[in-house]
Amino acid sequence: MRTSGEYVEKLREMRKNVYMNGELVERDCSELLPSLRVLSKTLDFVKDPRFEGLITTTSHITGETINRFTHVNRSAEDLRKKQKMIRKVCHLTGGCIQRCMGCDAINALSFVTYELDKVYGTEYRERFLRYLEYFQGHDLMGAAAQTDVKGDRSLRPHEQKDPDLYVHVLEKRDDGIVVKGAKNHITMAAIADEIICLPTRAMKEEDADYAVAFAVPADSEGVKLITHVANPRPREKFKAPVADFGFADSFVIFDDLFVPWERVFMCGEWPLAALLAHGFALFHRHSYTGCKPAITDIVTGASALVAEYQGISGKSHVRSKLAHLASIAELVYAAGIASAVEGDQHESGTFVPNTVYANVGRRHAGTNIYHEYEVLADLAGGLPSTLPFEGDFASPNTRRYLEKYIMRKDGVTSENIHLCFRLLSDMLCSSLSGVSAVAGLHGGGSPIMEEIIIDATYDFEEKKRIAEYLAGIKNQ
Amino acid sequence: MRTSGEYVEKLREMRKNVYMNGELVERDCSELLPSLRVLSKTLDFVKDPRFEGLITTTSHITGETINRFTHVNRSAEDLRKKQKMIRKVCHLTGGCIQRCMGCDAINALSFVTYELDKVYGTEYRERFLRYLEYFQGHDLMGAAAQTDVKGDRSLRPHEQKDPDLYVHVLEKRDDGIVVKGAKNHITMAAIADEIICLPTRAMKEEDADYAVAFAVPADSEGVKLITHVANPRPREKFKAPVADFGFADSFVIFDDLFVPWERVFMCGEWPLAALLAHGFALFHRHSYTGCKPAITDIVTGASALVAEYQGISGKSHVRSKLAHLASIAELVYAAGIASAVEGDQHESGTFVPNTVYANVGRRHAGTNIYHEYEVLADLAGGLPSTLPFEGDFASPNTRRYLEKYIMRKDGVTSENIHLCFRLLSDMLCSSLSGVSAVAGLHGGGSPIMEEIIIDATYDFEEKKRIAEYLAGIKNQ
Amino acid sequence: MRTSGEYVEKLREMRKNVYMNGELVERDCSELLPSLRVLSKTLDFVKDPRFEGLITTTSHITGETINRFTHVNRSAEDLRKKQKMIRKVCHLTGGCIQRCMGCDAINALSFVTYELDKVYGTEYRERFLRYLEYFQGHDLMGAAAQTDVKGDRSLRPHEQKDPDLYVHVLEKRDDGIVVKGAKNHITMAAIADEIICLPTRAMKEEDADYAVAFAVPADSEGVKLITHVANPRPREKFKAPVADFGFADSFVIFDDLFVPWERVFMCGEWPLAALLAHGFALFHRHSYTGCKPAITDIVTGASALVAEYQGISGKSHVRSKLAHLASIAELVYAAGIASAVEGDQHESGTFVPNTVYANVGRRHAGTNIYHEYEVLADLAGGLPSTLPFEGDFASPNTRRYLEKYIMRKDGVTSENIHLCFRLLSDMLCSSLSGVSAVAGLHGGGSPIMEEIIIDATYDFEEKKRIAEYLAGIKNQ
Amino acid sequence: MRTSGEYVEKLREMRKNVYMNGELVERDCSELLPSLRVLSKTLDFVKDPRFEGLITTTSHITGETINRFTHVNRSAEDLRKKQKMIRKVCHLTGGCIQRCMGCDAINALSFVTYELDKVYGTEYRERFLRYLEYFQGHDLMGAAAQTDVKGDRSLRPHEQKDPDLYVHVLEKRDDGIVVKGAKNHITMAAIADEIICLPTRAMKEEDADYAVAFAVPADSEGVKLITHVANPRPREKFKAPVADFGFADSFVIFDDLFVPWERVFMCGEWPLAALLAHGFALFHRHSYTGCKPAITDIVTGASALVAEYQGISGKSHVRSKLAHLASIAELVYAAGIASAVEGDQHESGTFVPNTVYANVGRRHAGTNIYHEYEVLADLAGGLPSTLPFEGDFASPNTRRYLEKYIMRKDGVTSENIHLCFRLLSDMLCSSLSGVSAVAGLHGGGSPIMEEIIIDATYDFEEKKRIAEYLAGIKNQ
Repeated sequence: MRTSGEYVEKLREMRKNVYMNGELVERDCSELLPSLRVLSKTLDFVKDPRFEGLITTTSHITGETINRFTHVNRSAEDLRKKQKMIRKVCHLTGGCIQRCMGCDAINALSFVTYELDKVYGTEYRERFLRYLEYFQGHDLMGAAAQTDVKGDRSLRPHEQKDPDLYVHVLEKRDDGIVVKGAKNHITMAAIADEIICLPTRAMKEEDADYAVAFAVPADSEGVKLITHVANPRPREKFKAPVADFGFADSFVIFDDLFVPWERVFMCGEWPLAALLAHGFALFHRHSYTGCKPAITDIVTGASALVAEYQGISGKSHVRSKLAHLASIAELVYAAGIASAVEGDQHESGTFVPNTVYANVGRRHAGTNIYHEYEVLADLAGGLPSTLPFEGDFASPNTRRYLEKYIMRKDGVTSENIHLCFRLLSDMLCSSLSGVSAVAGLHGGGSPIMEEIIIDATYDFEEKKRIAEYLAGIKNQ
Repeated sequence: MRTSGEYVEKLREMRKNVYMNGELVERDCSELLPSLRVLSKTLDFVKDPRFEGLITTTSHITGETINRFTHVNRSAEDLRKKQKMIRKVCHLTGGCIQRCMGCDAINALSFVTYELDKVYGTEYRERFLRYLEYFQGHDLMGAAAQTDVKGDRSLRPHEQKDPDLYVHVLEKRDDGIVVKGAKNHITMAAIADEIICLPTRAMKEEDADYAVAFAVPADSEGVKLITHVANPRPREKFKAPVADFGFADSFVIFDDLFVPWERVFMCGEWPLAALLAHGFALFHRHSYTGCKPAITDIVTGASALVAEYQGISGKSHVRSKLAHLASIAELVYAAGIASAVEGDQHESGTFVPNTVYANVGRRHAGTNIYHEYEVLADLAGGLPSTLPFEGDFASPNTRRYLEKYIMRKDGVTSENIHLCFRLLSDMLCSSLSGVSAVAGLHGGGSPIMEEIIIDATYDFEEKKRIAEYLAGIKNQ
Repeated sequence: MRTSGEYVEKLREMRKNVYMNGELVERDCSELLPSLRVLSKTLDFVKDPRFEGLITTTSHITGETINRFTHVNRSAEDLRKKQKMIRKVCHLTGGCIQRCMGCDAINALSFVTYELDKVYGTEYRERFLRYLEYFQGHDLMGAAAQTDVKGDRSLRPHEQKDPDLYVHVLEKRDDGIVVKGAKNHITMAAIADEIICLPTRAMKEEDADYAVAFAVPADSEGVKLITHVANPRPREKFKAPVADFGFADSFVIFDDLFVPWERVFMCGEWPLAALLAHGFALFHRHSYTGCKPAITDIVTGASALVAEYQGISGKSHVRSKLAHLASIAELVYAAGIASAVEGDQHESGTFVPNTVYANVGRRHAGTNIYHEYEVLADLAGGLPSTLPFEGDFASPNTRRYLEKYIMRKDGVTSENIHLCFRLLSDMLCSSLSGVSAVAGLHGGGSPIMEEIIIDATYDFEEKKRIAEYLAGIKNQ
Repeated sequence: MRTSGEYVEKLREMRKNVYMNGELVERDCSELLPSLRVLSKTLDFVKDPRFEGLITTTSHITGETINRFTHVNRSAEDLRKKQKMIRKVCHLTGGCIQRCMGCDAINALSFVTYELDKVYGTEYRERFLRYLEYFQGHDLMGAAAQTDVKGDRSLRPHEQKDPDLYVHVLEKRDDGIVVKGAKNHITMAAIADEIICLPTRAMKEEDADYAVAFAVPADSEGVKLITHVANPRPREKFKAPVADFGFADSFVIFDDLFVPWERVFMCGEWPLAALLAHGFALFHRHSYTGCKPAITDIVTGASALVAEYQGISGKSHVRSKLAHLASIAELVYAAGIASAVEGDQHESGTFVPNTVYANVGRRHAGTNIYHEYEVLADLAGGLPSTLPFEGDFASPNTRRYLEKYIMRKDGVTSENIHLCFRLLSDMLCSSLSGVSAVAGLHGGGSPIMEEIIIDATYDFEEKKRIAEYLAGIKNQ
């Protein structure tokens, strides 16, 4: 398995195609470092005893020890370990671990390529397994590029005024295909090894060219990564892990990108586009049942800490709010457990999470995220929004005033109070906090997307039969 | 195992000690019949192929086939089957199955008597196992009497002006003990074989006399059952299962009740009162993760049905509301699954559900029940509250008007619309509906009780450590 | 002005056309008495000094002193007095005063007939004023019949399979019109003097026959009133005002009803059907800003009382919940005040409430009603659902047990505790409580109806302009 | 009245005592400019015809035309104009206008000094009126310094380990007093002319030294302003008003500050500290019924705009969400109207808003602010969090891609879409957005503070009497 040093080394050697604020930048530029640190942790923790048996596993294809972030789940136990690992790594990076999306893409492809071959007599599965061996063997970071830019939301792909508003196949050649279009909100694309492109929705026959899936190196000719970063405020003197980690998303442009056939995993089989789109979403929502509880854990811990520092931790309304936060985290996590143990082994051997539980879990997280920040802000009071700048805590002019007047509960040092409120300020009043809230709402599918899947897959008819039976209604 | 006929026969032979509205009544009087029908179903379903492998199991003490409602859980699988069974039986009785409370009492005693013996060198466990053999062998219905009347809520048991406001030991004799006090809200006590009395809370040393647990036949001298029933409106012509089943609760008075030692399971060991009180609550809350989703299923089914009849089932706000109801049911059920698979086998062999998941599940159900009825009322419109009486649908004077004007979506008969709205009227605008809502809020512990348990058992310190780490706070 | 004795006398003399449970009944039968008592209060209070200057006013057409329930509002002050009067009378009848609907119908007709004449050169206003003089002079009770049965909710009136699913004109004759159809949920129709029929929605040209408004005596040939009552449980020994008052709704059948022209106020002028439908709804929603706070007041008072009796009234979570209930009541009431002071005098002289404030007020009430009952149930605990029957509190067998064991806070008598919980049981666990909740949600228009009106009338364009300005977007 | 030029000129001449990030800075430094622009608008709008009759009024002491932000309210009409003015100015500065706090302090002092004189025979009112003449005559900006740093929240002022954790009188001299302590979260202090210090809470006798109120020039010796700013991201190319305005708060340090007697308005009269603290809060909460609806208006407008651009503005869930936002704004605004028209004229002539309505209004705003941002984020989708930087929209490398792929509904230019999402990004994902959310929750008093006031002032006893009457409970 790779070290984080090797990973960064590799990034440095890649072709420059990352744009930021109008400039072509290096993959290890200072703006991308906070995200690089996040991904590096997934490599570093391999040697960390806290992650023993959790972050490594055995490849079902090669029998080699691999990073779990490259693993295809083969059992409920696998899914539960993935969920647990994600919760734990997110605690230590203070938020989204970013790498799960590539893993979820791999898992979706692992059973959908099987279905494609079964229906169409294609050979996608074989190609995919070769790619998987490469992916696992090199311990790669894959960015899953799913969300198209979508243009007018009331129109289907082929109905858009500009046909490129969804990614599509321009040309099929002997050696591969040429694709065009753009995906947006693509987390970690700028620091990934690979970009794995998947369809974003169900397709109809007229949309056949839009039913396309493939993987390419992130620095391929024809790929441009216009990148937005959300980084914590730099700390000058009061260093803290929370200030080390950030978030990077890209507009991924496929500008007449050529993809050789061995890396194409769907090409025109529109009836199965939904299976791949939803299959990825399903694995990804299961992953969210790990990361979202982690974020709630951080909110809970920060809430409990500031309540303690304020001297109000024993108040009944505080206890009730903390129990409420814990309930959110554990209901979402419980949904992930249920999704694993009620999951099913697909014919291909891939173990697929239960759809209903993964979706009710992700939905519960999404409908609560803003409320969680509200609870934190409620317990913290106004100081996260008015905390003087770091320099004032350091300057001889003002330091003694702030040290004197920030004091709260007896026995807690002014430095710890300061560090606590600086964390809160980062969590509540920074651009990164806003990005986290939006990501918590929409990332991996907004609550309305989960409702659509629940609506489509839940057995409402059985519930109606129960109501009819109780009502004494006889239907023929 | 008993038949429901044998059960009713036995009730008829019991000593008369059930009071209702000022009268001493028979256990199979018409007011108690709707509740009798509910309990009878737990016997009848033993032969129903839909419940094969679910409602019967094997006694771990005798190896005999027994009703799962008398079983001590020995594995996560046991807990999951219990949860599933409860959801299913509640679908068919339209609500609370009532019998789970005796089962939950048995389970709590099965491991707490073990702990008592370990700490105090007593022989409660042996006694309990003999009682259990009797209980299972006769397929008994046990009412768990836990909630004391409690007097002034701000005072502990021994501080009450009247010492009898919590049940306590008046006298210890050679052959047994004499107890005094009352328990209220005791479901099914009037139609139970046995009353199993448990402490309602943690006790301190001064409360030692209040740390008492025992089981007595429900018609014992010294027991009086002042009973309230909540029954559906009787149907004259438009029969329906929903109108068959009801709910009975009693004020259980222990009036200098004598209990022989072989039926005493705790007597003065106040430090373990909390373990027994919370142990019962824990098993009971796990049971709620089965019954509450069943109630939500019925609400969901009725909502979907009336939406269909109104011609609005395809509207997006309707789909969203149905998905929301499904999410409530499945999050609660998922919490029950997680509570089972994350449970622990106690030294005594009893498999104990995970506390946090059982509590977050029950809490989620309790905080949503009124809202669920609101959604149903929202989709149903005003007719459940203004539906003409049955007689008007039967009388030649008015029938043709109602049949004409109740019509909704083409293709649905007026009779089915009528039956549907009569179900809705029973679910939303009857005394039974009010009782169900209050029971959904408070039964098995109000949300505030779950918050107290979460507050006491959740690892908030770990979450604070995470926040401190991210903040850069070093604690020695 | 009439006395309540005269009112009941008149009801006794009316033609029998009220049906209940298959029987033709008298208007003063025991089932209708609880509703009769409610309406009678609006006459009795005229002499009550608590209502001086509130429940009587001066007719703007005759200068006579009249009951405010028959008054056409001429100023913001009028609307504020009406709102205040309604809140106060509802306190004393424990809920809906029922009579406001006739008043709201009169107010809507008072300005819409003016508009009709202006547009169509008709003489509706003159007719209406003559009718108003009669209505005020005889101090009449008018039931506003607006809600059609509506059949398939996805179809317009003329598209229904059965043309009678909305009330419509069958025939226009020299002396009047013949109408057919049915209205449902018509409060107090069975004990009203008059039925005032109004269109239920906007109409298109094909629906012209459905654009009809008129008033007829409630016992007219061709009118049949199939009636549902929701009455409190009768009290045997523990009398209380809450048990005196009930609620009556009817399916109002117009079976080829003849209406003379002098009582027809709209007939075919479909473009103004919406104005009349919405005009009535607007006045009615303003009335709700009086009655709904009254209901919240009762919930608040009962919550505060039971908290006091339980000994928990000083707890911070209790104080917070009471403040929350108060906030609901006063926000709704504030919306009514704003609706009055921001209202407008119509050319006809009628003072029309502000639409947005009336609708946001009614909506806030509707979206909170179930939650209010939840708060009450939360503070009350389980006893409202398991309270033994009245007879047990009276019987020598059981009375002493209940008196002993119901005790709570020192200093509160067992009788008062009993009366308090019997009130709570009536408020939470009776058929009447279910009806009140549904009425609180849907009566006068469900929250979704208010959203539709807000959507149609709120100046969202102005808000978009503000956003565009801030964004730097220039639109030509 | 002053021009904004004169105001800035004056700031430049003030003594340097503003600290930021460790440096002593000028009051018109670039970091403070965005806040300066906000305050300047309150001067510039005096000549703007849109504010005619709104932003100027007549001084009741001098008869001169003055800025309404320096006016003492003398009628309900005054309060309504203030509320309206605030809503309107906030629309144009995109948020908090900052200046109302000085106005609210003036109003509180105007009637509390009267009460002080009445009780203590002091001459505070005369002093205050002289100060008011100066304040109005020079059209001053006053920062109200109320919130003490408060140390351990479970202790009263005199119980704190460090006596300076609440501002207090150190010494009374012939010519004035010396005060010590700090106030935090003091909006606009760094750009104010004056600092008006008020007590933050009710005091007991031991806290008498903490019952102190006074006004000093913001650059007085002994005042230090450690300042935090929250400014929008600077715009390089895509200028927009939203990017012009910011927010400044200070830790205000009183370091043995000398205050001459003519500027002291309370000094030791602890029984009236609560009246002044709550009096200021009351006027300030009434001001919030103007500014908070403005913020909701901006959220509503941005939501409606982005929905339109996405092509989803006709969807029923979108309409429902917009109506929901409108309801929040208008309920809060209605509460302000009711607070004005139900207010009372104090003996001093000051017109005081109704307490209950001001508090339920402010509370409703505070409990909804996070939810409002959630609705906006919901409708906007993920782009506000991943929008590429400005430079990418300008650079020839990337511009054409972004212009192509950002397209949404036909007919909306890519530039407008870009500007719209940049606004959304500022509103949802900037440090300023976090500050606005926290300010919306806590500014002017968190919802829990309003609940405390409602609890203290609402007539719960009357509601209990209603419940007792309905229950049939007779209390002697």
